[in-house]
Amino acid sequence: MKVFGLQEIKALLDIQAAEDAISRSFELFSVGASQIPKPGELFFPEHLGECHIKYGHLKGEPYFAVKIATGFYANHSLGLSSGDGMISLFSATTGKLLTIFIDEGYLTDIRTAIAGRIVARYMAPSRVNSIGVIGAGIQARMQVEQLQGVIDCKSIIAYARRPEALQEYCQYMSSVGYEVRAAESVAEVFEHADYIVTTTPSKEAFVKAEYLRQGQHITAVGSDGDGKQEICVDALAGAVRIIVDSLSQCERVGELSHLLKAGFNEPRAVEELGAIISNPSKLARQSASEITIADLTGVACQDIAIASSVYERWLASDTQSP
Amino acid sequence: MKVFGLQEIKALLDIQAAEDAISRSFELFSVGASQIPKPGELFFPEHLGECHIKYGHLKGEPYFAVKIATGFYANHSLGLSSGDGMISLFSATTGKLLTIFIDEGYLTDIRTAIAGRIVARYMAPSRVNSIGVIGAGIQARMQVEQLQGVIDCKSIIAYARRPEALQEYCQYMSSVGYEVRAAESVAEVFEHADYIVTTTPSKEAFVKAEYLRQGQHITAVGSDGDGKQEICVDALAGAVRIIVDSLSQCERVGELSHLLKAGFNEPRAVEELGAIISNPSKLARQSASEITIADLTGVACQDIAIASSVYERWLASDTQSP
Repeated sequence: MKVFGLQEIKALLDIQAAEDAISRSFELFSVGASQIPKPGELFFPEHLGECHIKYGHLKGEPYFAVKIATGFYANHSLGLSSGDGMISLFSATTGKLLTIFIDEGYLTDIRTAIAGRIVARYMAPSRVNSIGVIGAGIQARMQVEQLQGVIDCKSIIAYARRPEALQEYCQYMSSVGYEVRAAESVAEVFEHADYIVTTTPSKEAFVKAEYLRQGQHITAVGSDGDGKQEICVDALAGAVRIIVDSLSQCERVGELSHLLKAGFNEPRAVEELGAIISNPSKLARQSASEITIADLTGVACQDIAIASSVYERWLASDTQSP
Repeated sequence: MKVFGLQEIKALLDIQAAEDAISRSFELFSVGASQIPKPGELFFPEHLGECHIKYGHLKGEPYFAVKIATGFYANHSLGLSSGDGMISLFSATTGKLLTIFIDEGYLTDIRTAIAGRIVARYMAPSRVNSIGVIGAGIQARMQVEQLQGVIDCKSIIAYARRPEALQEYCQYMSSVGYEVRAAESVAEVFEHADYIVTTTPSKEAFVKAEYLRQGQHITAVGSDGDGKQEICVDALAGAVRIIVDSLSQCERVGELSHLLKAGFNEPRAVEELGAIISNPSKLARQSASEITIADLTGVACQDIAIASSVYERWLASDTQSP
């Protein structure tokens, strides 16, 4: 049985094929043509650690997947990266283990960024002069990189709480061809940027309602439970449309959960990304002035799709080796 | 990172070390010193398939584990075995993936049989003249083999519904040194045997109350949800002590669940295996006449323990290779 390591996975991954597979998986998920139970969780508070197990099957697909991802946020003091993980792919007709991707968390990172890319296809304003970034970690890099080819803008304004992390981020993004400016506050980012990605594990919301300007879009990828929140509830309530990857999951752990807890219970324009992909003429951005916010928490359908996509590229390749 | 295949796992496994680890894991589990969420499940009814994900951490232990096991019961028509699976072991201090056991379901089979072995240590009558077996699959073999060294008896009486499966089973057990007799009914097994293991995926209970004789012990390993049941509720209610691997799980999916559904709600002597291991003088078999029944559904603590045990044998060995 073939077991893939990180370098092989990177060599096989085709971003466009993965995006197509993930888009289709969101559509299947949103019409209920999937079996995606609530993710499994383990917590290791003494090491600031957590483990998430996301698994499921999309109707009619030949594979099902089980993804394990860890985040141990005290690891940097040991000189280790915080994340690790793997995805196992099984036959949905025989239950046989087909392959394992020992991806060290890479496929989770990239499918998270690809979800942001898909959001941009449907929600970005037609003209973006500046991309705003909050945070300086792996998603701050990948989310911006995955906007290439979708948003025609190489200008970034970024903010992160730790100055040295912000400086390092700006240097990196500059080295890969962006024109980068470090902001001194979140407010400054929102003053200049049209399309903003927030990528922090913050438990204190920092995007305030008064920062928002007409026509802006925000994609928030930091909040996935455990009290995490990036967007103040009145800012979220000010969006003309909230895009969620999974309604049931975002109601439980996403930005949306905080809105509901705060008592904003009136019906509002919350749409799953899969529904938008299926019906863009009605649900994608309708005007240059709309404020839209995407709340991405990560869904197993993305893991199944990206793993299947890489596996099928390998099956179709000439370089299959046992 | 080391990935273990089936032959390596078999070569490294030390049954006594695994039993010791599993016993300790049951004790930790039963005093609540563990983090073992409800298992994850996926179902593939068109292929009679299911996938169970068991995962967790035992307090103070250096590893946590995620076990994936599949059973696709139409596979025999394709010439394939029904089960497959793997166990991943992670560091509980850094979340790093340490190793993967591609065990094809073997470690699940063996840890299930070892739980039966542990039950026998505490619950078997002091003298066993005949071991009764219902079923003819892998657990019918392994449960008996794992009684060696605990129960001093090489005589088996066995029954299975399919005559050819029964014959094949008898031939196999005879070839590994047992004196085997094929019975013509479940009743005939109970008439002769003192220690009985039931190992079928039956959804119709077949162990009737009138079969039971004083001093008998039954270990039932077939029922793990989905309506499965081997022991009639009045037979179960007739036991002086019911031993469960996990009280919460057996109340949900084991033989015990059927007793509760049938309205037998009065307090009775139900004990977790871990409590018996911790306090044998009070909870193990007390007399030669007691009827005792063990209801084993399989708990993640067993998977963590057996995987850790094999991994530590490898760490201690001279044959470590990357």
